[in-house]
Amino acid sequence: MADSKIVTAALLIIGNEILSGRTKDANLPFIAEGLGTMGIRLSEVRVVPDVAEEIIGAVNVLREKYDYLFTTGGIGPTHDDITAECVAAALDLPLVQNVEARRRLEERWASTGIEINEARLRMANTPEGATLIDNPVSAAPGFQIENVFVMAGVPKIMQAMFGSLRERLVGGAPLLSESVVCNLPEGQLATGLAALQERYPDVDIGSYPSYAHSGFRVAVVLRHTDADLLEAAAAAVMVLIDELGGEVEPQEP
Amino acid sequence: MADSKIVTAALLIIGNEILSGRTKDANLPFIAEGLGTMGIRLSEVRVVPDVAEEIIGAVNVLREKYDYLFTTGGIGPTHDDITAECVAAALDLPLVQNVEARRRLEERWASTGIEINEARLRMANTPEGATLIDNPVSAAPGFQIENVFVMAGVPKIMQAMFGSLRERLVGGAPLLSESVVCNLPEGQLATGLAALQERYPDVDIGSYPSYAHSGFRVAVVLRHTDADLLEAAAAAVMVLIDELGGEVEPQEP
Repeated sequence: MADSKIVTAALLIIGNEILSGRTKDANLPFIAEGLGTMGIRLSEVRVVPDVAEEIIGAVNVLREKYDYLFTTGGIGPTHDDITAECVAAALDLPLVQNVEARRRLEERWASTGIEINEARLRMANTPEGATLIDNPVSAAPGFQIENVFVMAGVPKIMQAMFGSLRERLVGGAPLLSESVVCNLPEGQLATGLAALQERYPDVDIGSYPSYAHSGFRVAVVLRHTDADLLEAAAAAVMVLIDELGGEVEPQEP
Repeated sequence: MADSKIVTAALLIIGNEILSGRTKDANLPFIAEGLGTMGIRLSEVRVVPDVAEEIIGAVNVLREKYDYLFTTGGIGPTHDDITAECVAAALDLPLVQNVEARRRLEERWASTGIEINEARLRMANTPEGATLIDNPVSAAPGFQIENVFVMAGVPKIMQAMFGSLRERLVGGAPLLSESVVCNLPEGQLATGLAALQERYPDVDIGSYPSYAHSGFRVAVVLRHTDADLLEAAAAAVMVLIDELGGEVEPQEP
């Protein structure tokens, strides 16, 4: 088995609009899957309002507890965009105008005829010592300071930013997964699955019921970094389903 | 102005499948909007894995910090369903078999020909002293203990459970909102909006940019419990947009 250190990350989603239900977050699954492919496990997510003490508190807990912290939201030009100043406060660093960020913004504004004003220049502020995260969509960059990565909340921009981070992030062995879907109720599988979890204690075995028009289905999802171990555990789940008289659904290719 | 106490709530989403990105959470916006109509403000959300110490830790922080805590996920029959025991541990209460929960499950199982087994009976376990939350979909109930409301993760079941809670929850004045959508860039609105936020310090004024095929749009969303104050602040936003040469989009009815 290759390096099996588990590299962990947290996501902090900042914004009243998520907490009010007005905006449905689309960044969590995108970031979760992207991190997964790099061998980084998203281990906790928090959503907090545009309130400085809540943001600062969450940044400090999460950056200390996990290898990486990603934030989304609150980096625009308006009064409710306070992420940069909160991250600076959390790390006890001064908030400064980042020269390169200002240059990129002015270049974009010159080419699009947008006037420079004080509010827009807030988007050039970062904690001292931050490195920028490119924003090919609308120029206003995100930034990295220590293990904290500050990104936009608008999914299109966040995705572009996240895509540029791949080479900065050091993952562990990628977490592989196998799904076994069957037509048995969870309550019938449960005892056997619990025994398999004991037999394969390092494999993360989850059971997810759902309702389809053809009746209930259960997806047993297994995760581990070791493909051989994963395959053995998945095979054992299929034997269990067979022994219980269930049928395994063919996998989508 | 009516009672303006702000009643707050947190949501704890429990499950590896959300953190892996495999399952997209649909419960947050549903609960946020439902609470909003009752005058309860969703103030924080956390997503944690199926790990006892993480669940217990989050339950204890959130139930103490907010008026209500809602949890979703982890109440099925399988080994990864550990919410009930974790909530019991968090509240330092014994986990017991709830007689009424068992009765409901046995009644359902008798009518559908499902055998009783030890794994299924785990769904009748609650912290001592809990009251049940009805599950009209699949019988296995959620429960309330103190200010903690434990619900299923499957959206259809969660929604049915949440619907039955309305009479148990005591809200404050409902938070009203007004949206003003315009064609000005955020950076042009920002200074004027910040001034309006100072003029109406109690109104929560948020600015949300988006990209449509017709170009960028900004939605200014105002929230407060007082309809007159809200209307005055929204009118001031419209005046600001007009002064800046922008156009307000007609509202959807």
